[in-house]
Amino acid sequence: MKAARLVEFAGPDGLAIEEVLAPVPGPGQIRVQVRATALNRADLLQTMGLYPAPPGVPADIPGLEYAGVVESLGAGVTRWQVGERVMGLVAGGAWAEQLVTHEREGLRIPGQLSFEQAAAIPEAFLTAFDALTLQGGMREGHTVLIHAVGSGVGTAAVQWAKAVGARTVGTARTAAKLERVKALGLDLGLLVDGAAPSFAGQVQANVALELVGGNYLPETIEAMAPGGVVMLVGLTAGITAELSLRTILSRRLRIIGTTLRARSLEEKIAVAEAFAAQVLPYFAAGTIAPVVGSKVPLAGLKGALEAMASNETFGKTVVTL
Amino acid sequence: MKAARLVEFAGPDGLAIEEVLAPVPGPGQIRVQVRATALNRADLLQTMGLYPAPPGVPADIPGLEYAGVVESLGAGVTRWQVGERVMGLVAGGAWAEQLVTHEREGLRIPGQLSFEQAAAIPEAFLTAFDALTLQGGMREGHTVLIHAVGSGVGTAAVQWAKAVGARTVGTARTAAKLERVKALGLDLGLLVDGAAPSFAGQVQANVALELVGGNYLPETIEAMAPGGVVMLVGLTAGITAELSLRTILSRRLRIIGTTLRARSLEEKIAVAEAFAAQVLPYFAAGTIAPVVGSKVPLAGLKGALEAMASNETFGKTVVTL
Repeated sequence: MKAARLVEFAGPDGLAIEEVLAPVPGPGQIRVQVRATALNRADLLQTMGLYPAPPGVPADIPGLEYAGVVESLGAGVTRWQVGERVMGLVAGGAWAEQLVTHEREGLRIPGQLSFEQAAAIPEAFLTAFDALTLQGGMREGHTVLIHAVGSGVGTAAVQWAKAVGARTVGTARTAAKLERVKALGLDLGLLVDGAAPSFAGQVQANVALELVGGNYLPETIEAMAPGGVVMLVGLTAGITAELSLRTILSRRLRIIGTTLRARSLEEKIAVAEAFAAQVLPYFAAGTIAPVVGSKVPLAGLKGALEAMASNETFGKTVVTL
Repeated sequence: MKAARLVEFAGPDGLAIEEVLAPVPGPGQIRVQVRATALNRADLLQTMGLYPAPPGVPADIPGLEYAGVVESLGAGVTRWQVGERVMGLVAGGAWAEQLVTHEREGLRIPGQLSFEQAAAIPEAFLTAFDALTLQGGMREGHTVLIHAVGSGVGTAAVQWAKAVGARTVGTARTAAKLERVKALGLDLGLLVDGAAPSFAGQVQANVALELVGGNYLPETIEAMAPGGVVMLVGLTAGITAELSLRTILSRRLRIIGTTLRARSLEEKIAVAEAFAAQVLPYFAAGTIAPVVGSKVPLAGLKGALEAMASNETFGKTVVTL
């Protein structure tokens, strides 16, 4: 099969499209013929050698999400039949024509969505759902602060928060991105200077989706209402920050670091099953929708990664196979 | 009645023993004849004007815990009779011969304990129980890291953690304090230089009781096992810290700020009732015991506060009335 292989840790330039052996589905696993995959910031780190794949997935093929068709079944698989449409998260290996995954991690693609649309769902919406709902305790009436609101996770979070009746406040560094997210349900858009972010005076958030970290986090903490939860999901602005412990203590805040990739199979299955029950019906009803900012073929992967690195993208960048 | 009144924000010197009017119990409240109270670091802050009492409690009488006898009943009280022995937390007003409190916040004093012993229980053990168990999710087999392990909360936390079958690791700045806590069940004592604390290489903790903050917190974060919970309870070493967000994210840590005083009455009652059900039986059985480091009369309050400020104390300092 064809795959985007990491041949050296050199950023996107370290990738080569090569022929490799297809993976073999083990017990309980399905093999998927991938029709579309997508880009994530974690992929950029992986191409630089900063985010190695965990054991059990291909170390040299990045790619964290996919949409495709069940191609064959491992021993004991009961939930899928060959030919069914499936999407999901993997810990690596999705930038390839085929991948294997546990049958209980796969999600059924809602009927009206294309493979390209479906490939834009898993990482963005599972991350937003897991962080805001399962860990952050977001409820109707809450105010939710979402940074990098034009990103894949940001656009997913706005839609999911609106779907459950929360008020959405988002930050971005360009007015054009904020305008585009307003059409998705953003209630208040805050234009932020990345060098000196200042937004704490404009919001009192119950839950924050901290996708940026670094110099944003001190402001995020000041922007929290008593009892608020800061979900620390991304660190594009920096990996350290000087924080006010007094604010964290006196407001009884919770700062929660989270990553989906490092979890055990059982934890991942639990998130996938909660997502299937609680979020997929909204896609089926058309209340929420994946945001495909651009589409490229596998050969266009490098250029698309560079565009993401320079913050030019909106929503998800999908790769077709 | 006699009370220690704060007449100016001048540290312990701002306190004067004066005659004041006794408080009147409202509906659902009991009035307590206080037989013993105790000191907390928060009192020091309050004498400096840095930790004002919340609404509804005397602004000028510090004191956060008490043991005594029910003296009279407000309207509608059903749980207490005059003459019963009671202890508990209040948000202020305990450095006085009488105080009022909601009947559901009061805890029954286990039979064999004196008033002096009982006064050493509420703040230390409720804080440790709430932080480690109710919020931190401490379980049998966990490793628990406890800073300032010779303090009132520290000595309570060691005993409670041992009682539920956890392994206890504690830090202190003198070997003598570590030795004394070993007798209470400390499994591993780490002598720490307060100017440059270094202990992360010696422990992998599931739950940490961060009673110190400041320059301890970066080390505490490095000392956490994946999925660990840091309960931020005290900040004697400093109110800011530069933290590794990468470690928080990649290990999926939770940093939780907590304070009992700022909570609603309903929240406080819930903690008191959980404590009565889960912890008081251990006192009754003698498995855990309050640690009374020293006892002073009300007239000795100032000197005792100064001893606490200079870290000379061990366990709780109790004030008899």
